[in-house]
Amino acid sequence: MKIVLIGASGTLGKAVAHELSVRHQIISVGRKSGDFHADLRDIGSLQSLFEKIGTVDAFVSAAGSVHFGPWNELTPEKVDIGLRDKLMGQVNMVLAGQKYLCDGGSFTLTSGILSEDPIRFGAAASLVNGALESFVRAAAIELSRGQRINIVSPTVLQESMPSFGPYFRGYKPVSAADVALNYSKSVEGRQTGHIYKVW
Amino acid sequence: MKIVLIGASGTLGKAVAHELSVRHQIISVGRKSGDFHADLRDIGSLQSLFEKIGTVDAFVSAAGSVHFGPWNELTPEKVDIGLRDKLMGQVNMVLAGQKYLCDGGSFTLTSGILSEDPIRFGAAASLVNGALESFVRAAAIELSRGQRINIVSPTVLQESMPSFGPYFRGYKPVSAADVALNYSKSVEGRQTGHIYKVW
Repeated sequence: MKIVLIGASGTLGKAVAHELSVRHQIISVGRKSGDFHADLRDIGSLQSLFEKIGTVDAFVSAAGSVHFGPWNELTPEKVDIGLRDKLMGQVNMVLAGQKYLCDGGSFTLTSGILSEDPIRFGAAASLVNGALESFVRAAAIELSRGQRINIVSPTVLQESMPSFGPYFRGYKPVSAADVALNYSKSVEGRQTGHIYKVW
Repeated sequence: MKIVLIGASGTLGKAVAHELSVRHQIISVGRKSGDFHADLRDIGSLQSLFEKIGTVDAFVSAAGSVHFGPWNELTPEKVDIGLRDKLMGQVNMVLAGQKYLCDGGSFTLTSGILSEDPIRFGAAASLVNGALESFVRAAAIELSRGQRINIVSPTVLQESMPSFGPYFRGYKPVSAADVALNYSKSVEGRQTGHIYKVW
């Protein structure tokens, strides 16, 4: 398969690239790294890029940032970082990508455990992850030509524990490689509207 | 109790006002109607208003619009309507209101069934409702002074069936009065981080 992978340079993205590239052609997209550059936050930037790449079998996103920080310093502007980037960035990938996705092809997005199991400092991340999961449930019944859409919701990664460990006390970390398996399930399986919870 | 009710002029808002006003003082807030006027989308507008009203025992929102429409005409701009209004409007109420909410006081927000059970034309609404529910779970562990936060997630209202019925075939409608009972549960009960599903 020919697969567009957005966010291939991140901790999770690298593992997803490693998992999928054994059997598929990966076209990596990043803001500054990868085969092609695009800004997820700008749907026009994605449309131009997808037009250049042409038809593919899957779009996968392991990209997107959100604000973490003290509740009493949270502002609408800080929430907006995640709305523009992790949320609308991935929604933009779907809205722009569907025209270039083959019949039966798939979108796979990334949310995270905080939609259901919150931590201190994580309200903006929870909000964004919840939005993404409900969007995927809804988009699954709207897509045409047998196109599918799923989302992977990982807990904290083993690889991220040196920096995120103090915020995720009691959360059992999983390896990026184990999380990456779920992207194969989504891309090579037949499910749609599914949330792959990896925790 | 002294309760600020935002969106008191809507179908649901009227029922919530009726339910709560039997036992409490209701201060109604709307864009153009009610005791006070404010634009939920502008946190500054809410801050000025709450400063004027002073300390209250509860903030309740039954306000917020989202875009409904064909999937193949969905754009980031149409999704943004709900992000600014129903989502960030209610988040703004919480961020601005916490300073004016008494110890043990409560926020009660409104989402809707589409976060879990999607309909055609409703992807932007699903996204917004999912965001709100996860935000409430997260905010519940962050609020201080015993402040609480819950959310009511109604299915389609009986009163809305003349206009929304065709989009909600097979969904059993509930009366606005029955949905309104849950706002009493949230305000007068002791739960926090709870999603009151009314379907």
